[in-house]
Amino acid sequence: MYDVEKIRADFPILSRTVNGKPLTYLDNGASAQKPKVVIDAITRAYEHEYANVHRGLHYLSNLATEKYESVRGIVARFLGVRDEDEIVFTSGTTEGINLVSYGWAAPRLQAGDEIVLSVVEHHANIVPWHFLRERQGVVLKWVEPELDGSIDAGKVIDAIGPKTKLVAITQCSNVLGTIVDVKTICHAAREKGVPVLVDGSQGSVHMPVNVEEIGCDFYAITGHKLYGPSGSGAIYIKRDRMDEMRPFLGGGDMIKEVTRDHVIYNDPPMKFEAGTPGIVQTIGMGVALDYLMGVGMDKIAAHEADLNAYASQRLAGLNWLNVQGHASGKAAIFSFTMNGAAHAHDISTILDKKGVAVRAGHHCAGPLMEHLGVSATCRASFAMYNTRAEVDVLVDALELAHDLLG
Amino acid sequence: MYDVEKIRADFPILSRTVNGKPLTYLDNGASAQKPKVVIDAITRAYEHEYANVHRGLHYLSNLATEKYESVRGIVARFLGVRDEDEIVFTSGTTEGINLVSYGWAAPRLQAGDEIVLSVVEHHANIVPWHFLRERQGVVLKWVEPELDGSIDAGKVIDAIGPKTKLVAITQCSNVLGTIVDVKTICHAAREKGVPVLVDGSQGSVHMPVNVEEIGCDFYAITGHKLYGPSGSGAIYIKRDRMDEMRPFLGGGDMIKEVTRDHVIYNDPPMKFEAGTPGIVQTIGMGVALDYLMGVGMDKIAAHEADLNAYASQRLAGLNWLNVQGHASGKAAIFSFTMNGAAHAHDISTILDKKGVAVRAGHHCAGPLMEHLGVSATCRASFAMYNTRAEVDVLVDALELAHDLLG
Repeated sequence: MYDVEKIRADFPILSRTVNGKPLTYLDNGASAQKPKVVIDAITRAYEHEYANVHRGLHYLSNLATEKYESVRGIVARFLGVRDEDEIVFTSGTTEGINLVSYGWAAPRLQAGDEIVLSVVEHHANIVPWHFLRERQGVVLKWVEPELDGSIDAGKVIDAIGPKTKLVAITQCSNVLGTIVDVKTICHAAREKGVPVLVDGSQGSVHMPVNVEEIGCDFYAITGHKLYGPSGSGAIYIKRDRMDEMRPFLGGGDMIKEVTRDHVIYNDPPMKFEAGTPGIVQTIGMGVALDYLMGVGMDKIAAHEADLNAYASQRLAGLNWLNVQGHASGKAAIFSFTMNGAAHAHDISTILDKKGVAVRAGHHCAGPLMEHLGVSATCRASFAMYNTRAEVDVLVDALELAHDLLG
Repeated sequence: MYDVEKIRADFPILSRTVNGKPLTYLDNGASAQKPKVVIDAITRAYEHEYANVHRGLHYLSNLATEKYESVRGIVARFLGVRDEDEIVFTSGTTEGINLVSYGWAAPRLQAGDEIVLSVVEHHANIVPWHFLRERQGVVLKWVEPELDGSIDAGKVIDAIGPKTKLVAITQCSNVLGTIVDVKTICHAAREKGVPVLVDGSQGSVHMPVNVEEIGCDFYAITGHKLYGPSGSGAIYIKRDRMDEMRPFLGGGDMIKEVTRDHVIYNDPPMKFEAGTPGIVQTIGMGVALDYLMGVGMDKIAAHEADLNAYASQRLAGLNWLNVQGHASGKAAIFSFTMNGAAHAHDISTILDKKGVAVRAGHHCAGPLMEHLGVSATCRASFAMYNTRAEVDVLVDALELAHDLLG
């Protein structure tokens, strides 16, 4: 039994009001709120257990190192990875994908080589590849979504040609909620000898993930969407790919020896973690993932599926609302526009007056916006702590917006 | 009047014990402890004011954005910069220097071009330049320290030749405490048309800094050494250099427009800040810098000068202790070895039993260790909250270590 009220009580911010109304936080696609266990872990770390990691031998440094390094195993467990040394800590998915772009792709890809990606990608999984296009003539091959917003795995596989060196694809669209069958793509790509990077920023939040079953080479997550601190994240990198990578950020910790004339790099994963890391936010991310595994990602997925069904039905009743994307099995993320002249920003402003937090804009998905033929949408994105009653609050607020703007 | 006891009361961790003894935290060179105002700001942000920044229009997002963006002005004020758009947020000095290496130096420097740096640099200000040596044949020109551990500004200036494209130098050695006359270096380099990057990781902690007076092109700081959260930082980049830079990390926020075929990048500083940033740790860094400016960096410098004098005198009384570096005006950072076979790690372990936290190792300064002819030292590094009584505790603990190991 999923007790959503008990879960809500774990998140301090959910009891606050906004503009005199109870907060209805539906901007989870941008960033999720944090449970008290995460906030308390941060406070405890700074008040009682703080020091730099790895390089000290004193009590606090050993303690901080132990807590920090234990998160590697937590992330591995969360992602279904057996060897925790395949987990690299990052400041988030953006740094994770840039690590792959700079560390693996840039030194290997030649002019004319292709990267296959989908039109629903987030800018974090587009711009690092545009760099390679601009700087070294790599070709980006785009796979179009279907009419319902789904991505046909077969079309992605068909796009893989003899010059394809990488597939970079999201597991879940941050705009449409579309879930991509990355497992089928990865298995076919592996037969063709092409590595796959999966952007797990949204996917990992909404469903149980097992990257070894998926069969990808890279899987990036970001802590702040997973109910953890800002500035935390990790990326799974298959051992074979790690061995092919050159270091990305240079500095302390990622070296074994530095002289005037040469550097001997550390072994992975340390080779890819330079300088003093995000110690406390990584510890906080570990607590967040433990919290999620304690609740159960399958239970969270079931709760969100219920919200999804209810919200889909209620929003479908608003015949002046255009919800983008209806792929089967999609996550509870709803992007919409309103008939008439109402701008997404105006809608979100009215919703805000009712305490409803949604996002308005391009959602860092330029090519998808172009594909949809809109410059901006409103997006209501649900999380483990949202309720059916909040769906009703959203619908009421939308009706008000329609009355005022429609 | 500098009331160190009042300041100590602001730092919760300083009242804890370690191994049954009051904590004597002298590992500040690795990372500083955090005042309660910083910890409280983090808690408040997550409990009441959290959302993603920049992209939302709802109340919490606007509030978080306002708090986050206000830190740019705080950093500018802290560093004596008039135009806050010359401040780029980073996850710390390591990311800041890599930003300069990848964004400014890599696309500009050719094989045979030279970077001048000193032997006392931290790996964060060495390895990014080694990348350029390994990958594109850039030549590193090393300036040796004097016998007392000082860096002769004239020798740095003399090292600048017709092929020199950059000087990369620390303002304060993290091992010796040596303060480098970066102002003289910067003014001479500017006359020769050579930009200077100053690693301000340690320098900014121990003295008032005005980068416009210094006249450098890049000045990197790290929040966790400045009594702020882990994973926070910033870099000052002179407008002229910003205009010459290509983007480094690709993702959301650093773009104006992304299509399948092209990207239009955002204006600086956003051009250099990709993806969801370290929202809460940046807010915390702002609170830390406000705290420091409230106390007064000149007063902190005076307090640390007093500690420095006292510690220098007391340590000089231990004729079996070899303190490395005696440059005039140095910061209160003491690296030492002990006569006899005592290994730095063993010394630090004994000190730890007395509650004294010092660091043992190479301090991320390989070339300097080679220069000093040691593989490791112990380092006691003082901060705004340390006291003369703690110097005495350190000396007592060293005497015990000498009795046991000497």
